[in-house]
Amino acid sequence: MSSLEEYNVKRAALIAEDRALRIDHARASNHTATEIQADAIVRRIRKEEAETIWAEEHDDVPHPFPGMEFLTGKHIILKTKLFQLLSKMPKGALLHAHLDITVNGRTLLDLALQHAAIHIRAPVPINAATILSVSPEFGPQAPAFVSIDSSLCAKEYVPGTWVPLRIARENFDPSLGGKDGFDKWILSRMSITPSEAYITHNNNIRIWDKFREAIIFATPLVYYYPLFEDYVRSFLLETIADGVSYIEARINFSAKCMVGVDGLENVPHRDWLITIDKVVNEFKENLRQQGREDDLIGIKIIYTIIRHYSVSELEWYLEDCLALKKEFPHLIAGFDLVGDENILRPLIDYLEPLLAFQKRQKELGLNVPFIFHGGETCGDGTKADVNLYDAILLGTKRIGHGFSLVKHPKLMEICREKGIAIEVCPISNEILRLTASMTMHPLPILLNNGVPVALSSDDPAVFQNMGLSFDFFQVLAASEVTGLLTLGHLARDSFTHSMMDDSDKERAMAAWDRRWTKYVQEIVDLDDPIHD
Amino acid sequence: MSSLEEYNVKRAALIAEDRALRIDHARASNHTATEIQADAIVRRIRKEEAETIWAEEHDDVPHPFPGMEFLTGKHIILKTKLFQLLSKMPKGALLHAHLDITVNGRTLLDLALQHAAIHIRAPVPINAATILSVSPEFGPQAPAFVSIDSSLCAKEYVPGTWVPLRIARENFDPSLGGKDGFDKWILSRMSITPSEAYITHNNNIRIWDKFREAIIFATPLVYYYPLFEDYVRSFLLETIADGVSYIEARINFSAKCMVGVDGLENVPHRDWLITIDKVVNEFKENLRQQGREDDLIGIKIIYTIIRHYSVSELEWYLEDCLALKKEFPHLIAGFDLVGDENILRPLIDYLEPLLAFQKRQKELGLNVPFIFHGGETCGDGTKADVNLYDAILLGTKRIGHGFSLVKHPKLMEICREKGIAIEVCPISNEILRLTASMTMHPLPILLNNGVPVALSSDDPAVFQNMGLSFDFFQVLAASEVTGLLTLGHLARDSFTHSMMDDSDKERAMAAWDRRWTKYVQEIVDLDDPIHD
Repeated sequence: MSSLEEYNVKRAALIAEDRALRIDHARASNHTATEIQADAIVRRIRKEEAETIWAEEHDDVPHPFPGMEFLTGKHIILKTKLFQLLSKMPKGALLHAHLDITVNGRTLLDLALQHAAIHIRAPVPINAATILSVSPEFGPQAPAFVSIDSSLCAKEYVPGTWVPLRIARENFDPSLGGKDGFDKWILSRMSITPSEAYITHNNNIRIWDKFREAIIFATPLVYYYPLFEDYVRSFLLETIADGVSYIEARINFSAKCMVGVDGLENVPHRDWLITIDKVVNEFKENLRQQGREDDLIGIKIIYTIIRHYSVSELEWYLEDCLALKKEFPHLIAGFDLVGDENILRPLIDYLEPLLAFQKRQKELGLNVPFIFHGGETCGDGTKADVNLYDAILLGTKRIGHGFSLVKHPKLMEICREKGIAIEVCPISNEILRLTASMTMHPLPILLNNGVPVALSSDDPAVFQNMGLSFDFFQVLAASEVTGLLTLGHLARDSFTHSMMDDSDKERAMAAWDRRWTKYVQEIVDLDDPIHD
Repeated sequence: MSSLEEYNVKRAALIAEDRALRIDHARASNHTATEIQADAIVRRIRKEEAETIWAEEHDDVPHPFPGMEFLTGKHIILKTKLFQLLSKMPKGALLHAHLDITVNGRTLLDLALQHAAIHIRAPVPINAATILSVSPEFGPQAPAFVSIDSSLCAKEYVPGTWVPLRIARENFDPSLGGKDGFDKWILSRMSITPSEAYITHNNNIRIWDKFREAIIFATPLVYYYPLFEDYVRSFLLETIADGVSYIEARINFSAKCMVGVDGLENVPHRDWLITIDKVVNEFKENLRQQGREDDLIGIKIIYTIIRHYSVSELEWYLEDCLALKKEFPHLIAGFDLVGDENILRPLIDYLEPLLAFQKRQKELGLNVPFIFHGGETCGDGTKADVNLYDAILLGTKRIGHGFSLVKHPKLMEICREKGIAIEVCPISNEILRLTASMTMHPLPILLNNGVPVALSSDDPAVFQNMGLSFDFFQVLAASEVTGLLTLGHLARDSFTHSMMDDSDKERAMAAWDRRWTKYVQEIVDLDDPIHD
């Protein structure tokens, strides 16, 4: 062997050893010929589009690149063949999404307009000078509420007066765009705009201010019980259409009641779950009738509250969670604390009640595992980063985000060995400014270290990444190592990392396998000129 | 033990195990009481300033934070006590700096103004409409060159005509700021401005365009041999003043000759080295006379060329490098290829000549190790990322940047075990948009994995981070794990990772130890109210 040949043998061996822990390498021998062919086609298209669509200059996007800032690049993503292909892929389970922040503003506003009880108010009259800075507020009112059919834009509008939503929309000043201007205004307050993410609020501290505002603004609509059923229906419809077949959604149970049809805050948590159960069963029945049972295996709920309560307040929620688990054992999948880890309370603050919660479960014969957020931060040794130690020590089944996990060699080893999956939310991390673009995201570090990963969307209502196609796209576009087969393994493994019991997991994977086989065959068929 | 106590014992053990590979943990038992006290003082000051100086809003910096974008935050850094303390620290060796891109624009322009031969020209007359977009050019002329004392701003200026630099400056249009306006214009073209880095060129592809332009613009001054001696002097002066006591500077030898006093390109590489030798000896003698021998141990040169040559061109340079090593064995420390790895040629393209180079060294009894750039990229599996495999297989002694190394578990293991240090350039990486701020930089991953690291400045002329204080500051500000003692270990280890022989390394470390002991004592003394 010449020294060059020798070198190339050593080189191939080193690269293989470096990638040995990756799922796509560890399982390479099991790939079918069709899978390998589909993967190659997708890699070819990715390369072609990197050199064409992504190399074009745009007036509004002066220097695009694959994996670029999502809010700026989304309209380019939508033009790619790569995205079209991914949108048809069976995605597996969606394991990290906050149900109350999933349905996009347009749909939510349309739903709200169907309810005469929904009102809106503003702290000053809306005009060209105030529209960008003023924070309006939604509020459902009791049926007996007598409202004045005013306009938020009228000079004589009395600040703080509730105006029926439909009326406010109809009467919106034509100079501000009339109804369309109203919708645009409302929608921009429900999501994060490119200029907010990438200019005015371009760091992780500032962007949370806007993120929080957007959530608080939409909350009175989402938590209006007469609207909630349609909200859940819309979420399921879009998610299933995107190829997701199982969901573990986090619900923020911080509010103890939703507002009911009588305008009072009196609809307790159990009614929320009853509604979810009802909608899911209706979906399953519909799909069954269409012979599409494989498209929805089920949905479970992770009980979450904001990480700002006192210990005694937390204790009330923990008991509430156990009571719901007892009544809806098939539905409650775990417990979590949410909110900005950088500024709210760390897990260690709640050590005592959380340990007591585990003890109490044993006494009651219940099982509500922790599925904690942790390390959603750029901090190194900060309380948000240190949450990772506590999440793992408390036995978390998965880790929400785990963005800073890659800094912790021992914790990565533990996650790999114990199968603790990291719920990685690429677009969320980027819009919340933990990473400037997908090309800087630490995901490849997790993959190359064999740490289990479940790609997730987090808060599609605000990030505009409904389903999983957009997050899958960003991951695929930003790497030359990751391919379609990597995404396939991630999708299939998501069932393994779910809280389903073993028989449901098997059923879910068998269903996914059927869809996947069809999917890779279609990629190959479509690409074959003979079939054109 | 209660379950809480038990938990806390386990927790402390897990954190310790996770950090066991860090130099500051592995060597914790050797820290003196004074070192521990100085470290605590620095941590206290960092915390105080995070809550005061960094929490203030500024009109020009709406949301500052420790470790923020350097070009925007530099004036805030300069206000901190933390920076004042770091600027006095003995820094050890500077192992990654491109000598031809070190001296700041102001000094370089002042040096150029001392040489009547230096001229400047522009492709159009300079006025308010053209000043921002036009690229001027420097050119040293022969003594006999007859130039017209024109103005670049005159309507009748003939595009491309050489104007003496001093005249061009004096005649600069008062409406453009006159001499000050001229200087401002020239300096902005020699460095990267905040709005370029963070707005107009805000990604790694675009910013290289500006970076390259700035280097090309300054090159005719730096490579003007009559100016070079003062250039090297200025570099050494500022670097030593910042506490650096040993340097391995990369020089770009792509140009085969500098321009001499006769205006001709006829000063070969060996003369460059003779000049460096002369200046260094002069410095050493000066420092000796002041009893400051510890302040400069020496300087070595890493021979570099741009990674765009053909194989046969490269062969010429490799032979040239060996000839210089033979004549200046104490000076030539290694060989490297430089330039944007994302678009220029990867190491694997040069495999044959590089292997032959190693063979040839054995024949000649010379030793010029590779000290390669590698992985200066956000790419995953791209040619720039893959360079890391080849750098390591070719036996590189250190890795320049290695930004993407953290994605490669096997390569990190090899670097740790073989002691291959990563020349980490925090501010360079941030300004060249590999990371949006220091808080997103992968350095903590390297430290926590026990990979050797040498902090470096890269190109201070363009990045405005002369010395090592600014890079040390960013590292310290962006972490709550890293402390003064971590920086101390990094500084001391930099000698270990240098190409000095063992006796020089020992001498350098002993000198550093003396300065360090004094330094930590001063921190403690200054902080002690009794001493105030």
